[in-house]
This record gives sequence, C-alpha cells and structure tokens, in this order.
Amino acid sequence: MTTTIQGYDPRTGSPTGPAFPTTTPEALEQAVHAARDAFPVWSGLPARRRADVLDAVADALDAAATDLVDVADAETALGRPRLTGEVARTTGQLRMFARVLRQGDHVGAILTPADASTGRGDIRRMLLPVGPVAVFSASNFPFAFSVAGGDTASALAAGCPVLVKAHEGHPATSAAVAAVISGELSRAGLPAGVFSLVQGFDAGPALVRHPSVRAVGFTGSLRGGRALFDLAAGREDPIPFYGELGSINPVVVLPAAARDRTAEIAGGYAASLTQGTGQFCTNPGLLFLPEDSDLATAIADAVGRTSGGPVLTGRIRDSYRHRVAELDATPGLVPLASGAAAQGEWAVTPRIWQLPLASFAERLEDLREECFGPAGLVVTYREVRDLLPVLEALGGTLTGSIHASPGEHAEVALLATVLRRTAGRLVHNGWPTGVAVCAAMHHGGPWPATTSARHTSVGATAVDRWLTPVAYENWPAELLPPELQDGNPLGIPRLTGF
Amino acid sequence: MTTTIQGYDPRTGSPTGPAFPTTTPEALEQAVHAARDAFPVWSGLPARRRADVLDAVADALDAAATDLVDVADAETALGRPRLTGEVARTTGQLRMFARVLRQGDHVGAILTPADASTGRGDIRRMLLPVGPVAVFSASNFPFAFSVAGGDTASALAAGCPVLVKAHEGHPATSAAVAAVISGELSRAGLPAGVFSLVQGFDAGPALVRHPSVRAVGFTGSLRGGRALFDLAAGREDPIPFYGELGSINPVVVLPAAARDRTAEIAGGYAASLTQGTGQFCTNPGLLFLPEDSDLATAIADAVGRTSGGPVLTGRIRDSYRHRVAELDATPGLVPLASGAAAQGEWAVTPRIWQLPLASFAERLEDLREECFGPAGLVVTYREVRDLLPVLEALGGTLTGSIHASPGEHAEVALLATVLRRTAGRLVHNGWPTGVAVCAAMHHGGPWPATTSARHTSVGATAVDRWLTPVAYENWPAELLPPELQDGNPLGIPRLTGF
Repeated sequence: MTTTIQGYDPRTGSPTGPAFPTTTPEALEQAVHAARDAFPVWSGLPARRRADVLDAVADALDAAATDLVDVADAETALGRPRLTGEVARTTGQLRMFARVLRQGDHVGAILTPADASTGRGDIRRMLLPVGPVAVFSASNFPFAFSVAGGDTASALAAGCPVLVKAHEGHPATSAAVAAVISGELSRAGLPAGVFSLVQGFDAGPALVRHPSVRAVGFTGSLRGGRALFDLAAGREDPIPFYGELGSINPVVVLPAAARDRTAEIAGGYAASLTQGTGQFCTNPGLLFLPEDSDLATAIADAVGRTSGGPVLTGRIRDSYRHRVAELDATPGLVPLASGAAAQGEWAVTPRIWQLPLASFAERLEDLREECFGPAGLVVTYREVRDLLPVLEALGGTLTGSIHASPGEHAEVALLATVLRRTAGRLVHNGWPTGVAVCAAMHHGGPWPATTSARHTSVGATAVDRWLTPVAYENWPAELLPPELQDGNPLGIPRLTGF
Repeated sequence: MTTTIQGYDPRTGSPTGPAFPTTTPEALEQAVHAARDAFPVWSGLPARRRADVLDAVADALDAAATDLVDVADAETALGRPRLTGEVARTTGQLRMFARVLRQGDHVGAILTPADASTGRGDIRRMLLPVGPVAVFSASNFPFAFSVAGGDTASALAAGCPVLVKAHEGHPATSAAVAAVISGELSRAGLPAGVFSLVQGFDAGPALVRHPSVRAVGFTGSLRGGRALFDLAAGREDPIPFYGELGSINPVVVLPAAARDRTAEIAGGYAASLTQGTGQFCTNPGLLFLPEDSDLATAIADAVGRTSGGPVLTGRIRDSYRHRVAELDATPGLVPLASGAAAQGEWAVTPRIWQLPLASFAERLEDLREECFGPAGLVVTYREVRDLLPVLEALGGTLTGSIHASPGEHAEVALLATVLRRTAGRLVHNGWPTGVAVCAAMHHGGPWPATTSARHTSVGATAVDRWLTPVAYENWPAELLPPELQDGNPLGIPRLTGF
C-alpha cells in the first residue's frame, strides 16, 4: 500500500508539490464519524443559512483563485486561462446552489389536505437530506468536478456532509481547495465533519463500503466506476451510486449543413475535439458525415492545424497511446489527420481516422468505446436513415449533437427519435463540450454514460440526488418543518393537490 | 420446471379456477419484443391521450368489478368488502395518474433562456419515458399492487409499455384484470405490446435480465426482492430496480397518550395488526409502550377479541407459523395475547408478545425482522429518550407512527429526529395501515423498506420512477416537444430559471 500521494507536473513528468500522506483506515473512520455527527447540525440549519455558507465558500475560492490556479496548473498543465475560468465555473456553481436553496423548490413540497369524506388524513411531503455522502473527484476538472465541484456543492446544498476522495492526479490542488472550504465552515462556527478530504486509492472503496455513507457521487472511468457501483449495490444495505462514466458523444452532420457550413463545422469540430487536450467527458468521439462531402478534407485540415499537449496523468497517457495503437491496427480505419506533436513526457497528439458506416457498424462493439483524449472517428454515411440502427446500438451517451440546415428538420426529427432515448442532452448546431451550469441542464444519460440515467451531475436538479422524501401524516402544525407549514412562511414553491 | 400455475382457495387449500400455462421463454421473448415495438407508439401519444386510455381502463375495471371480486375472493379469501374497496382504490389510482398526465407537472419542464453575455445556449429540459418496464405483482393486494396496480398505472402514465409478472397466488385474478386492460388497449387501436402479462416463477428473472427491459417495479419479500435487485444491478447495463421489500413499521405510544386514550389505542392497534389477516406491508410489527401503563392489558384484551383467518398462500402460512414458533422459543418474550383460532388449512392466529426495551435491544438483529401476518411485539420502555438508539438501529421502514397527547410535542419532535431519517412516512395519532393515494403520499423508505429510498410506489410522484430527463440545447422551435415550446401550448406547470 502506498503511504503518500505525490503530484506530478504533466509537462515534465516530475514531482511537484509536497507528498501527501494517504488517509489511514483509522483517519477515514474518524472522518466518517465526524460527518455522521455533523449531519444533524448541517441538515438542521435553515436552507438560507446553508446558502450563506455556500456563498462564503465561493467568495473565499474566488479570493484565493490566483494561488489555486498556480497549484493546479503545476499539477495538471491545463493552463492558467482555462483553470481561471474553471474556478469561476466552480464558484458560480456554488452560488447557483445557494440560489436554489433560497428559492426552495429543491424540497419538492407537496400538500394534500385532509378529506373527511374518505377519511384521508392531511399529508405533506418534502425531500430531506440522505445523510453523509462520498464524492469522487474527477481527473479532468481539478476544480469544477473535484473537491468543491458540482457533487460537493449540490450535496452540501442538500444538507449532507461530504467526504471527498481527492483524485490522485491533483493532490495539492485538492488539499488547497479543501483548506478553503474547511476554513469557511470553521468561520461559520460549523463542525469540521461537514466536509472532509481523504487521499489515496484505498480510501475510495472504504468510503463506498462504510455503513454511515448514504450515497456516492463519482466522475471517472467506466472500469473504476463499475467497480465502485458494484460495491455500492453489493452492500448489505445497497446505497445509490451516482456515477458519470464513459461517453462517446456522437455528432451527426447532415448533408446541407456539411455543404453550407463546411469551414465552420470543420473548425468547430477540431476545437471541440482538442480542447483541454481532449480530456472532456463530452468530447466528440464520433463524427458522422455524408460520404459525398468536402467536409472530411476540411476537417483533416483543421485537425492538422491543432497541437498536442500533456495529459493529466501518466496513466491517461498510457491509455491514450494504447488506444491509438489499437485504432491504427484496426482494419478499415484510415488515418485522416494528426495534430502537431507536443514536447514532454506526458504529451499526446490529436488523431482522427475515417471509415465508412458499414465498416463502423461491423466493429461497433470495439469502436464505440470512449477514447479519453483528443482522438476521434469520422464515419461517413450514405443515407441519414442508415444512422438510426447504429446510433441505437451505440448505447447510452451524455450528448447527441446534430448539425443541420434549416431545410433539414425532418432529418433532425428522425435522428432525435433515437437520440432522445440514448443521450441525456441533444445539441443542435453546436458541440457537446461546454456544459452550461443552469436550471434546465441535464448532464447524464443511459448506461454507460452514467449509472443512473434519472439524474444529472450538472445543473440545479443535481441536488435531487442527495435527497429523499418524507410524508408527514396528520402531523401537529407546530412540529412541521417550515417548508410544510400552513401559510408557507418561507414562501417557497409548493404544489397542493388531490 | 412447473408448466402450469394453479390458484388455490385459501379457505380450503384446494385448487380453484383453471390451471394457467407458464409463459415459455419464447413467449416471453415475443412479449418483450412487442413491448419494445409498442414503445414509440405509446410514448408518442400526447399525454392527454394516454390519460384517456387510463380512464377507459378504470371504467372497464369498475364495470367488471363484481366478476373480478368473485375471482379474487376465491383465490385470496380477502373477502368481498375488502376486495370491492380494493378495486375502487385501483381504479381511483388509474384516474389519479390520468389527472397527473392532464396536469403535466410529471414531465418536470424547466427552461433556461439563452444568455448572449456568457454564450450559453437555450436549454430546455423535460422527462421522457425510459422504455419497456417489468412489474412484479404483490401477493397481498391482488388489485391495487398487482396487474393494474400502482406500478402499472404509473408506468403506463409515464409512456412505458408494461410487462407484468403475475403473482403465483392469484393467477386467475391476474388473467382477468389483464384481459380488461388488453381489451381497452385494443379498443383504443393501440398495439397489444403496450401491456402483457406473464405467468410463472422463471418469467421473473428472465424479465429482469432482458436487455429491452429498462426498469423494474417490485413489491414483495426482502429475500425475493434482493435476488432480483442483484440481477438488475449485475446486468452488463444495470437498470433501476424499484422494490418495496420488508418493513417493521414501529409505533410509539407516549405516556400521556397511553393514559388518556387507552381504549382507543388498544382497539386501533388490534385492528391495524389483524386487518387483512395482517398481510400489509405497513402492518404495525413493533409497538413501544411506557412500562408503567395499563395499555398493555387493554391491548391484550383487544387482540384477544380478534380472530384469525386464512392467509394468501401456503408459503405465507408456513413462514408465519415458523416465525411464531421462533418467537415463542425466544428467551425474554412473554406471550401477551392470541386471537381466536380460525378453521382451515391456511388459517393463522393473531399473536403478540411483550418484552422490555433492554431485552429487545439485545436481540434486535433477530427481532427487527418483519413477520408477514397478524403478529406483533409489544416493547415496554422507561424513558422516551431510550427509544432513540433502538429506532435508529431498526433500519429503514416504510412508516414510523407516534401516539401523543397535545402536551407531548417535545417528545414527538425528539422521536422525529430519528424517524424522519429511517421512515418514509411519519404518522401522528394514527396507524400505518391505510396508505392514501394522493399527490403528497410517500410510500417508501430506506433499505430494507425499499431498494430506492428516493422513490415512492404510491401517490402521484410514483410516475417519476419511469422517466428520465433530456435537455434540448438550441433546438429548433418547431421540433421541440409541445411541453417545451414557446408559449406553453399545453398550459403545463414549467419552471423558468437561471
């Protein structure tokens, strides 16, 4: 068992920052107990008080942004502009959940009045926090899907203490963000157990197995996510596991769009494919083009003008190179373009291949696998309807995108009959990368995109994962939570119905 | 492998009605394919059209009620008054979901407008049906939790074709109800695959494993439910399994209530314990009384005046007798009362035992197990606060009930700090049996009460289990579903927000 976690600079492959001790089983036990003890305190705060704490954490992260970005850039090589933007996304997300709490519709309050004619009692239902939850940080978003990311923000908003498992790729960033959160909790006079950070691989399964952990949020690989999902489902008392796993993110370009917007689509694809060195769960791994179009040439040019760069970890580099070698060796795949190679131990190079739809369909089991990094397949089709069985067979994905001209609505509608069942977000004339944090966002999808297609990890409704309903029947008026009291003292949205 | 399913009259233990062939693997495959093919048709209907079909099924079941009750009474011995009421509950439930569909808030529509300043697109989210679903009928509600019960009604409302696995205890009732549903679907010109009935044990796991089945609803035993849950979670593509399993339903009587309402509480308890020969998932299996009260004597009298009766199946009788023998042999349990024995092969007798809280706590692992039937434990406590760790250790349960006098609000609040985390429904001065079908109802709870504490199997929000979100980004106005179109043509509730 490793006893320390060391960050590395992806630009050099050399250690950066201090080595962090892995969390011992005893320390993990203490952290979970502290979370359990903190649960009544944190969940017992009025929602508006929790909102104030989320806002304070956001302000503190913004104030520390320059230092945080320095630490994160050293560990991730994602670059200051992107990381600065990601801190802003993260704090914007915390503030969005603060707004959700002040608005109050996250509790899903429903009131059914008593009915003397049937003998039915007075029933009032709302959602309450589930208890301490475990959150697994993602490699590719050291801020927005990590320690203070969407899972943490939504779970804290719900009233759940959070135990974050840091990602091995950015231990110093994780520790720095955790210190900011813990500092604000302490300033607010709250118990430290409301938020804890654990480090080291073994802490992950230990959290998922722990009887006091009541739900899990995860963003990562299909293999890792599946293993933890199986642990959660295999417990004596199974708990919900909200995992975002692999996604291939098909993009279809319809014939008129390919003709009318060739340069725009080619440039947009190359940018979406290579942004963040392709390390996005919404990376467009599959592009479907009409076979008799000039778009493939334009795309080859555009991707040829991109450059590679370092990926986050040596493991991601190895996986990428391994997958590229497999694709190079796959019969029928023709290399279409490469970006410029980049210097450095952990650098990878953008790559795309081309093949006709029939060949893709034949090897679909192999080719539908996500390749994490700036690699993509360009699949050429003859008839739009030929795409339907292939899109269906791809399985679940976070996004499905269509580029269309105004005259191609019938084709869009046809493709949507499949995509709306297989993808969580349908994008028209846009690219899947870039997931807006907003009330209507859904960032999810059927397996293997996520372990729970019902839920999202981005957007206001992400808070829903950490809540469970309780119905109060004929409960004394003065003992009802304020959310359910007569006269609606909090002024939250409530349904009253049959 | 058994090739037929035979109903039995619980009053005599003799066969009643015809033997039904078990569904062969080939026939099951056909039924699932028909469901898959029917999915686009059924889910493509406007919600208000699906509502009309649910209403038509309700009307047809009401029209057939007398015959259905005859068949069910022969197979279940639950008696005509109860069964007649249960048909009404079932048709009321179908009509409630029709109202839900017409109201339209089940789709959870949320609109976030585009924001040019941040480059965010126009995002519109709604819930769409998940696909064909499997539903497992319960033994104890041959109508309301069976073929046309809440799972079927809510899944059909959602737009999902339904494959019902009939309960072995009432094959003829199941077939008769299925014929009514299929008849109405046919009359409405809908494909037969919208609804299918399968019979026989082996059809259950086959449905849960089938790739085209996208979710499962189940009401039954902890053991059976766990086995099917494990199958669903162990699939290559895990699917949600919404199971309602075992529940002990603790009831606490506070000291002043025990003193002030002795006779009322004693009578209420005896009635709740023995109603339907105790075959309710909300049966009050555990009653906590103050140790220095006369209530135990009153309860002994009240239960002594009850009578036994036949249970639904020979297996339930065997389990009940086995559990009663175990409890009789448990040191520290003192028999407190028995009801009158009833005649008949499958008859069981109401039984209660008494023990002090400390003894109960010592044997909690054994004694917290649900006993399906009219048996209960009466546990005497000294201090209300002594109950907290015991209620906590009981684990998840569908309900938690408290009898209190107006001066005992502090004690109610104290108990609720635990019960609101362990129980899905908190009942004040009432009994857990009798679950109103209404908008605010929550019939669920943490494991082992259910496999998914987030969801309910009774009430308007039960439809939520069969839906998954999709976000449309910059989608052409004329291609949006009407639920999301500008101007809100369906007039449904929608959120518009950040």
